Amino acid sequence: MQVSKDHPRYKSLVVREMMSKMVKEGIVTPTGMIAHGRGEAFDYLLGERTTENALNAEETAVALLLKASKPVISVNGNTAALCGKEIVHLAKMVGARIEVNLFHRTRLRVDKVCRHMERAGAKGVLGREPDALLPGISSERANSTIEGIFSADVVLVPLEDGDRAEALVKAGKKVIAIDLNPLSRTAKAASITIVDELTRAIPNMITMASSLKADPERRRRLIEKFDNSENLAESLEIIRARLEHLAQEGKA
Amino acid sequence: MQVSKDHPRYKSLVVREMMSKMVKEGIVTPTGMIAHGRGEAFDYLLGERTTENALNAEETAVALLLKASKPVISVNGNTAALCGKEIVHLAKMVGARIEVNLFHRTRLRVDKVCRHMERAGAKGVLGREPDALLPGISSERANSTIEGIFSADVVLVPLEDGDRAEALVKAGKKVIAIDLNPLSRTAKAASITIVDELTRAIPNMITMASSLKADPERRRRLIEKFDNSENLAESLEIIRARLEHLAQEGKA
Repeated sequence: MQVSKDHPRYKSLVVREMMSKMVKEGIVTPTGMIAHGRGEAFDYLLGERTTENALNAEETAVALLLKASKPVISVNGNTAALCGKEIVHLAKMVGARIEVNLFHRTRLRVDKVCRHMERAGAKGVLGREPDALLPGISSERANSTIEGIFSADVVLVPLEDGDRAEALVKAGKKVIAIDLNPLSRTAKAASITIVDELTRAIPNMITMASSLKADPERRRRLIEKFDNSENLAESLEIIRARLEHLAQEGKA
Repeated sequence: MQVSKDHPRYKSLVVREMMSKMVKEGIVTPTGMIAHGRGEAFDYLLGERTTENALNAEETAVALLLKASKPVISVNGNTAALCGKEIVHLAKMVGARIEVNLFHRTRLRVDKVCRHMERAGAKGVLGREPDALLPGISSERANSTIEGIFSADVVLVPLEDGDRAEALVKAGKKVIAIDLNPLSRTAKAASITIVDELTRAIPNMITMASSLKADPERRRRLIEKFDNSENLAESLEIIRARLEHLAQEGKA
């Protein structure tokens, strides 16, 4: 389909068409599209911009990834589709491994997402041959690798579901989530929740990584000061205030 | 996939799996899934229940459909998938025609959605052979039939996009929208906007139709009293108040 550039939702429409293509290729699942839509709604309520508290969460997350001894970025279909290249870049910057973990797992689909990440430049992608099970998850997402997520101390999980985020925390890992819904179970369970849209958050984090690498004192302070429930409450307050503003506008 | 009944989002998960199947059958498109996800997010913010002002909008909508001389229900893939049977039932109750109109239109897909509605019991479904173009829409959705939407005075458009809702209003029709986002262009353009989830709204409207049929005085009063922007403001206020409540809960 051709999308007119005049359309008020041009950017969203272009991303939607790209995601549709990814469904046909088997990278994204139909239910992954529903999750994308939920994100769109929350992003709309946030004003489709990176808020100040999201920036703070992003910078703290980068500091934590740099501090980690075994950081891993967990990649699912939506993440691969939306920003595969940027994930590869960030992984290099912070020295993290990439592991593919899917909600709707089949060998074929895992291989497709791994190859997608490899085409985006990733080396040594984990996930094709899981050799450990994360406790506390009944579904296929329990699959993990000893080299990767199973032994990781810090895991970045963009677009994760609540069950797995909670299980990762229970397994003693620091969990960094990227989730546009500040009320989700994932958002509440994570150690650091970035309430921002993925394709805005990851490039921000790449930029931050270069300067934070040279500044251990700032890294220390960021981690020390960060309070996730406070940060989440701020995101919620931003949405609430925006709704109030939009309601006023509607009346005027 | 097997969905455990213990899962906190059991009902949503079952609907998601059904919608996934509908994508495979070609009834629902991948971008239709994104729209479903946006709806899920707003429904979550509304508390996943029919609010009092939604009930009022539903009853007024039924009154308007009963008053209409040529009422038509416009059906797209998501509507057919989510509540084909109920739409057929409502159409019979209010004497409305059913016309299939798709954002992603191909002859094959129109035929699939029409057949889906016919299997749900619909007779004389329109839309396979459009013979008129609704002015003001550049896309395929301009297609309409003289027997149906093109000549209708009242059109019920569940899950409509902004462009088409605006074009229908400009064409002089009374438009009833069902849209969970009270801030959408569709919600603002419509004559009556029902801010409720489709599978709750349509059964409510079926029940209302039986009692309203026998009560012309109530029908008249409902239509006279209804103010759409006031009703929308109430939905927005409900979401805002709920966010405030959830934010308090989060802090506690």
